[in-house]
Amino acid sequence: MPSIDLEYPKQPYSKVNRYDSRASYALETIHSIVNTCPIVHVSFTVPDSPFPTILPMIGQMGSFERPSADTGDVLELYLHGYVSSRIINMSRKANGSGGSGESSPGEAAAAAEGLPICVAASHVDGLVLALTPNSHSYNYRSAVLFGHAALVTDVAEKLYAMELITDGVARDRYRHTRVPPNAAEMQSTSVLRVRVAAGSAKVRSGMPSDDRADREDGALLGRVWTGVVPIHYALGEPLPGPYNRVDRVPAYLEEFRAEYNRDAREAALEAAAVPVKAAGAKRDD
Amino acid sequence: MPSIDLEYPKQPYSKVNRYDSRASYALETIHSIVNTCPIVHVSFTVPDSPFPTILPMIGQMGSFERPSADTGDVLELYLHGYVSSRIINMSRKANGSGGSGESSPGEAAAAAEGLPICVAASHVDGLVLALTPNSHSYNYRSAVLFGHAALVTDVAEKLYAMELITDGVARDRYRHTRVPPNAAEMQSTSVLRVRVAAGSAKVRSGMPSDDRADREDGALLGRVWTGVVPIHYALGEPLPGPYNRVDRVPAYLEEFRAEYNRDAREAALEAAAVPVKAAGAKRDD
Repeated sequence: MPSIDLEYPKQPYSKVNRYDSRASYALETIHSIVNTCPIVHVSFTVPDSPFPTILPMIGQMGSFERPSADTGDVLELYLHGYVSSRIINMSRKANGSGGSGESSPGEAAAAAEGLPICVAASHVDGLVLALTPNSHSYNYRSAVLFGHAALVTDVAEKLYAMELITDGVARDRYRHTRVPPNAAEMQSTSVLRVRVAAGSAKVRSGMPSDDRADREDGALLGRVWTGVVPIHYALGEPLPGPYNRVDRVPAYLEEFRAEYNRDAREAALEAAAVPVKAAGAKRDD
Repeated sequence: MPSIDLEYPKQPYSKVNRYDSRASYALETIHSIVNTCPIVHVSFTVPDSPFPTILPMIGQMGSFERPSADTGDVLELYLHGYVSSRIINMSRKANGSGGSGESSPGEAAAAAEGLPICVAASHVDGLVLALTPNSHSYNYRSAVLFGHAALVTDVAEKLYAMELITDGVARDRYRHTRVPPNAAEMQSTSVLRVRVAAGSAKVRSGMPSDDRADREDGALLGRVWTGVVPIHYALGEPLPGPYNRVDRVPAYLEEFRAEYNRDAREAALEAAAVPVKAAGAKRDD
C-alpha cells in the first residue's frame, strides 16, 4: 500500500468542472470503481468517421510488473478484445507494430504511445426523488480514464491479463477452468494495455436536497414523497448449461455470488445514508 | 406502430463487424435498450485534447412532434445537462446559437447540424461461465447511436423532454412533483436533442458454447461447472429523506418498483434461456 494517497494529475481534459466537490482524482477511488464495474465503455476516434465511437468492453486494472500492487497503486488497464476488431487493429497500427506503409516522424512518435482512448466506468446507486423534477438526481460513482492503448505482445503479460480479466468477471474463476489457453486461443484473443495519462471520479451520494422555498411548502411536503430508491446489480441463481455435469454449484462461485450481492446492496444503502457533501451540490450533472 | 420494422441505415461507422449474427439495426430493438438503461454514456471530441471524452448522462428517446410515437418509430434522443457544462457549451456553439466570432461557410454548415456525438447504452444480463477462459462471455444487450446534439430552445419541447427524462428515471414521477419548473429551473437546466444519423445494437444471449474438443473431455466436464449466472439491476426498499412527510410510499412508485424488478429479473432469465444464435458465435466482443 502506498504511504500517501496517490492522485492523477488534473489535466484540462480530465478536470471535473461541475460540482467539483463531488470530484476525486485519487487512484484508489478511480481504480475501485473501474474494477467493480462488470463492463466499461471505451471511446476512440475513427479515421474518416464524422463521429467518435464507443465500445462496451471487459476490463480490469492491474500491474504485470508488480502483481501484488494495491488498488491505490499505479496500475494499467487491461482490456479484452479480438484480433480482428477495429479497436485492436487501430491499436496495433497506433503501436507501430502492424503498419505496412511509411509514417512521418510525428506519426511515429504518436504511434509509440498507442491509440488515444477514453474509458468510463459507472455505478448507479440510487434514484434520488426530490420535490421538483430539477432536483431529481442519481446517486452514482463514475470514473473516467484517459490513456493510450497498445497491444500486449508478451506472452507472460497476456496470460497475466487474461487471468485478471476472467477473475474480474467471477472471482477465482480462471484457475477453476481449463488453463492455460492453447495456441489457437492465445492467437484469437487480444489484450490491450492502457497506460493511463489522467483520470477522475465523480461521486454523488445522500438524500434529495431541494431548494428552501420548496422544503418550506407544507402542502407540497404533504403531497410528494421524497427519498432515495437504492439500485444495485444482483446476481441470480446460477443456471447450469446444456453440457454441465457438475451437480453442485462450486463453493468459490457461491461465495463470490453471496459477497457480490451483499457488497452491491450495501454500497447502494451506504450511498443513500451519506449526507450530501456540499450545500450547493443538489443536482447531478 | 409502424407497419414495417424500421431499421437504421448501415454506415461504415455504425456497422457491426464482429459476430454480425448478433447485430440488429431495428429502431425498436435499439430504442428499447436505450430507454431501459438508467444511464447512457456519451462520447464527443474536445478541441485541443489528445483524447475523446465520455460523460455518463441521463437520456430518453421520444418524439416531441408525435408524443404518442411507439418505440419502433423514428425518435430523437433527449439528454439532460446543465447550462455551464462543457457538452452544453459545445453543443450551443456547434448549433450556431452561442458563437460570438466569425465562422467559415464549412463551419457554419457543420454548426447547423450540431455537435457530433456517440451514445452507448448497455445492459449486462448474465455471466456466461464456460470450460475455458476464452469461451467466457456476458449475456448483454448493447446499443450505440450516432448523431448530432443541439440545444433545445423551444420552451414546450424542453418541458416535454424534462417530463420524458424524469419519467424515464421513475415512471409517472413528473406529474407527482411540483411542476411546471419555475423560471430559474428552466434557465439552469439544459436539454440536448440528438438527431440520430445511424445506430446499431448487439445482443448476446444463451448458454456457454465451448469448442467441441473441450465439450468431449469427460475429465474436464466433471471438474468445471458451466452455465449462466443471471445479473440484473434491482430496486431496493425506498428510503424516506430528511424532510419527507408522506408516510406511505405512493402506489405508483411501488408499482413501478415491482414491475421494474420483475422485468429486470425476467430479462436476465430469458437471455440465459435463449439458444445461442449462431454455431460460430461463441465468444463475445
